[in-house]
Amino acid sequence: MSIGFIDIIEYVGTFAFAISGIRLAAANRFDWFGAYVVGFVTAVGGGTVRDLLLDLTPFWMLNTSYLICTGVALAAVLFFKDNLMRFKNAFFLFDSIGLALFVVVGVEKTLLNGFPFWVAILMGSITGAAGGVMRDILINEVPLIFRKEIYAIACIIGGLVYWLMHSLHCDQILTQLSSAASVLLVRLLAVKYKISLPLLESSSQEV
Amino acid sequence: MSIGFIDIIEYVGTFAFAISGIRLAAANRFDWFGAYVVGFVTAVGGGTVRDLLLDLTPFWMLNTSYLICTGVALAAVLFFKDNLMRFKNAFFLFDSIGLALFVVVGVEKTLLNGFPFWVAILMGSITGAAGGVMRDILINEVPLIFRKEIYAIACIIGGLVYWLMHSLHCDQILTQLSSAASVLLVRLLAVKYKISLPLLESSSQEV
Amino acid sequence: MSIGFIDIIEYVGTFAFAISGIRLAAANRFDWFGAYVVGFVTAVGGGTVRDLLLDLTPFWMLNTSYLICTGVALAAVLFFKDNLMRFKNAFFLFDSIGLALFVVVGVEKTLLNGFPFWVAILMGSITGAAGGVMRDILINEVPLIFRKEIYAIACIIGGLVYWLMHSLHCDQILTQLSSAASVLLVRLLAVKYKISLPLLESSSQEV
Repeated sequence: MSIGFIDIIEYVGTFAFAISGIRLAAANRFDWFGAYVVGFVTAVGGGTVRDLLLDLTPFWMLNTSYLICTGVALAAVLFFKDNLMRFKNAFFLFDSIGLALFVVVGVEKTLLNGFPFWVAILMGSITGAAGGVMRDILINEVPLIFRKEIYAIACIIGGLVYWLMHSLHCDQILTQLSSAASVLLVRLLAVKYKISLPLLESSSQEV
Repeated sequence: MSIGFIDIIEYVGTFAFAISGIRLAAANRFDWFGAYVVGFVTAVGGGTVRDLLLDLTPFWMLNTSYLICTGVALAAVLFFKDNLMRFKNAFFLFDSIGLALFVVVGVEKTLLNGFPFWVAILMGSITGAAGGVMRDILINEVPLIFRKEIYAIACIIGGLVYWLMHSLHCDQILTQLSSAASVLLVRLLAVKYKISLPLLESSSQEV
Repeated sequence: MSIGFIDIIEYVGTFAFAISGIRLAAANRFDWFGAYVVGFVTAVGGGTVRDLLLDLTPFWMLNTSYLICTGVALAAVLFFKDNLMRFKNAFFLFDSIGLALFVVVGVEKTLLNGFPFWVAILMGSITGAAGGVMRDILINEVPLIFRKEIYAIACIIGGLVYWLMHSLHCDQILTQLSSAASVLLVRLLAVKYKISLPLLESSSQEV
């Protein structure tokens, strides 16, 4: 198996997602094993939900590289400890590149399995975002994505760009790159300019 | 596709379930996106678990109407805000009718796939109740259904009524209506007379 | 259907797992229904995740005995109340025997479905450990397994022993027994000598 450019980006994304899970686990005083599991679930959870919904064998059961990638991420956290945060901006970039790629992978895998575009856009977003939701459930917090981040909207926009360009019969590589770039751009702009969605407020707690 | 009476009830049920999720999300200061997701999960979560257990494609991936229904529910919450609670009794009724229908749909789909009746009753209950459990996990609370509501018992009774009438070779439409009516009746009576299950108490916290 | 030795151990394990879920539910003031569900999820949750990942019909949908076992466990908790804890050591032993068997069942079912050994070891561990994680999510606590218990490591070691002996062409029964015994041994030793994994500590809460 030759390892191509896409594989490298995918491992970088997996690594960055796993780091985010492991660091949150550390902040919650998990042990090594717990941190590894949370890192792994953060990295592969979204794709696993997608594969179960599409009735496919989860991708990480076909290839040991995701387990290894998470192990490397755990080793990095153990070794660098808080110094890891010097690379904070690098992680944010890796994480965003990983997200962008995950969305494109999710969209294409869904289309390949014969589902319509609106399902593909949903699955692209689930691939990118559900791992973080599962991470937050495991550490017993309200999922961050529901309150602060523009994460999911970036995924949906990336999926819509894919759809638009595919409908216009654009070249596939160009479509992939544009879709991924739009996820990245929306996320970076949202963080830079602190854009977030309005809260749904309710004066009444009664439900 | 002609839209029949059953479809209309199903959309009403989906709408009412989504409203319950969106309002809880609003009370927890989620943003619009988070509220939409929680509403959607509340509405389709039970049926999704059922379809995954039965190894079927989740129903909402075959039809955009559940996404749209949730969107309408979000718009309603945004537009009416707290005035929405003037219709509190209407929602409770919609929610209960939706529940009743979800149970019947879950029972029938399971039987159609060749499983025995006891699995069908479980799947009917999961269809009706698992969405609310997933909603409560997402907003990081102990599922309401485990402490207060008679919800799940209503589902099980509805399933048992279906089983009984089916065994007695009753007409299918009559069986469906009686099963749904029994879910509705048990739920309404339980709420009206504040009937709930006894708590399991333990003097010792030690586990 | 003749009930063999393996079946009896499996029911004992299911019963012990269900008891652990029901007691935690009682400590959190769940009602009877909630306690039953939490007990059932604790007992069958791990195997259900495994079966969904392997694309098989969940095992408890093929046989009513797991539902009945959980019902007996609920009755035992209701009847004996806190006196149940006189049998604390017996439960710990049952629970550990159940765990050991669940791991072996998970490994073998995965191999039978044509997956490689590293997937089988993961699935053995998921079979043993994921039910407890789901239990802790339902009662809205951080999963115990991520902070204190050596539980999961015992599962992984049991899987590795299975792999090793299988590679050495040992007799199947001997392989099963040795694998189960190693799970049991690691768990008992870890509890006796209070061995746990180091925590991942982080001075910074910032993530």
